[in-house]
Amino acid sequence: MNFNKTLKDIKTYEAGKPIELVVREYGIEPKDIVKLASNENPYGVSKKVQEAVAKIVSNMYMYPDDSMYELKEGLSKNFNVDVKNIIVGSGSDQVIEFAVHAKANKNNSILINSVTFAMYEIYAKQVGTKIIRTTSQEHNLDEFYTLYKEHKPSMIFLCTPNNPTGDAIDKEEMFSFLEKIDNDTLVVVDGAYMEYASYKDKSKEVKPKELIEKFSNVLYLGTFSKAYSLGGMRVGYGIANKEIINALYKLRPPFNVTTLSLEAAKTALEDSDFVKMSIEKNFLEMKRYEEFAKENGFKTIPSYTNFITLVFDSDKNSSQIADNLLKKGIIIRDLKSYNLNAIRVTVGTKEQNDKFFEQFKKLI
Amino acid sequence: MNFNKTLKDIKTYEAGKPIELVVREYGIEPKDIVKLASNENPYGVSKKVQEAVAKIVSNMYMYPDDSMYELKEGLSKNFNVDVKNIIVGSGSDQVIEFAVHAKANKNNSILINSVTFAMYEIYAKQVGTKIIRTTSQEHNLDEFYTLYKEHKPSMIFLCTPNNPTGDAIDKEEMFSFLEKIDNDTLVVVDGAYMEYASYKDKSKEVKPKELIEKFSNVLYLGTFSKAYSLGGMRVGYGIANKEIINALYKLRPPFNVTTLSLEAAKTALEDSDFVKMSIEKNFLEMKRYEEFAKENGFKTIPSYTNFITLVFDSDKNSSQIADNLLKKGIIIRDLKSYNLNAIRVTVGTKEQNDKFFEQFKKLI
Repeated sequence: MNFNKTLKDIKTYEAGKPIELVVREYGIEPKDIVKLASNENPYGVSKKVQEAVAKIVSNMYMYPDDSMYELKEGLSKNFNVDVKNIIVGSGSDQVIEFAVHAKANKNNSILINSVTFAMYEIYAKQVGTKIIRTTSQEHNLDEFYTLYKEHKPSMIFLCTPNNPTGDAIDKEEMFSFLEKIDNDTLVVVDGAYMEYASYKDKSKEVKPKELIEKFSNVLYLGTFSKAYSLGGMRVGYGIANKEIINALYKLRPPFNVTTLSLEAAKTALEDSDFVKMSIEKNFLEMKRYEEFAKENGFKTIPSYTNFITLVFDSDKNSSQIADNLLKKGIIIRDLKSYNLNAIRVTVGTKEQNDKFFEQFKKLI
Repeated sequence: MNFNKTLKDIKTYEAGKPIELVVREYGIEPKDIVKLASNENPYGVSKKVQEAVAKIVSNMYMYPDDSMYELKEGLSKNFNVDVKNIIVGSGSDQVIEFAVHAKANKNNSILINSVTFAMYEIYAKQVGTKIIRTTSQEHNLDEFYTLYKEHKPSMIFLCTPNNPTGDAIDKEEMFSFLEKIDNDTLVVVDGAYMEYASYKDKSKEVKPKELIEKFSNVLYLGTFSKAYSLGGMRVGYGIANKEIINALYKLRPPFNVTTLSLEAAKTALEDSDFVKMSIEKNFLEMKRYEEFAKENGFKTIPSYTNFITLVFDSDKNSSQIADNLLKKGIIIRDLKSYNLNAIRVTVGTKEQNDKFFEQFKKLI
């Protein structure tokens, strides 16, 4: 059977290995496995959220409230924006999908950082649009601007803090850049890890309200998968001016977020103590990685997220290290597919990090 | 801002009104509302499924198993097909989306029944493909064949039992039709309500295994939203030969089904007693609607589903009836937007149906 030509260029996405798979492949006991591969919040799920969800499992037969009334009210209060400026997706991934399908096509292009979140490229390939990449590893906004002028892309993606490197764009620099971009170019500011950056360094903090009030062509993305600890529930959101939100809404399938996910996200927003605790502990533990790297003579990229990227010299091979860790039940992300001789490690709990250091020391 | 041209033709989907909205609009107490609008299973969620999900709420922070190992094993056993013949979507809706994006485009067309599930058209408009419709209200496979020869569509959608009318295609007739269709035309057989049809009339039963063994160009769709009572959890599946499944997989975003949804669906598959009970009660209660219609002088369409369509003569107006029912807290689906002077009523529990009859009698 023949399929649309765009499919030829699409590779199937390879997610981080789930615990179940490692158990099956190496016969390791689930309790001995340390998964630091997908930047989940290692402090588990807020008790309040667990209770709220467990309370409504009898509602699973009913379709979700497709207006997402309560969650959107919660987001509206949290960010001090109107509900009409908000769209909720099955993860912020899905909002990226809507945006790419709304704006990009075979006859235009998108501009992304050389190393960045893989889903931008995957969705771009679905619509067969051209992908322009910078050469710098970190977001270099001068290079972005040069490429913008040269290619006039339909979309620009700024991922801050950036995944999988952890660095973040200075807010003032970003705003100066955005002022130079024309109104018909949709700029996506992906703040999946913004809660971490805001805590660590106010100069990196981008507030959606200020962003969309100043720039009518910007779509801010946030997620419940990281600081809010709901990676399994698939809830993210986009914040932008109404014109953009209305366009994305046309591509939103009905009931795109489950009944239990709506409840979980709404309740998670209300439990700010849990989020604060998670972020504080994250940066305390991250210090241990930085010190470990210093002691053992390799580099880390300063991180504004809940993960840290360890960069190796050419005498070490990140893929080998990742494989050897996996055999010991430690799952991290090799960045070889991003052309980096590096691994990305989610900063875990104290116990998880202890286990990582213990095994990692033997390999370096 | 300019968006892709295809967006101009897309209207935002209007889902059935959720209970919360009716409460807000008319000040009706939640306990007094009877929602018979979205063909949810009125017998609630299987106790086993509720328990299984409540038990793992502490896992919500972890991304779902993206291989969907356990659920796919369950589906594989249930339908006696290989796991490689299965793709799981966020509702069968999402599998429709994958199929349309894989096969349809601006330069070809899709063929659908005059009155059928609204999402085929919605996804078709996303890719700007031409939509060919039959004129017959029921699936008339002779007319389908004539239009197929005339237009050579890239896809044909057969919805059996059909939503929102409830009628079903005879299996032998369908197979004879499929034999005449060329291998490059993707035929989608949407069996969202098949569990109901199989119970009521074996001549309507289409088994995915037989279907895909005979026809390499057919994609069968099933869902957990109806007989399996998980409308809120968004789980559906497609079954087809590997070539088709591999193509659809390229369009599947990672983690498209939540951690709790995977657990719910897996467990629901194992609780066949609950499904059987739901279906048996459904058809017992449906008889009351048929008798009520006979006594009160209007038509119903023989239904192989968990809903029934009441058709009015021109002296009655389905929209008015729907509005008046809504004011009494009874939510059903007006079919005026399908060009039918009819309402679609989910067959509820005995108590729900009693309330429907009580209010409905006052309006006719």
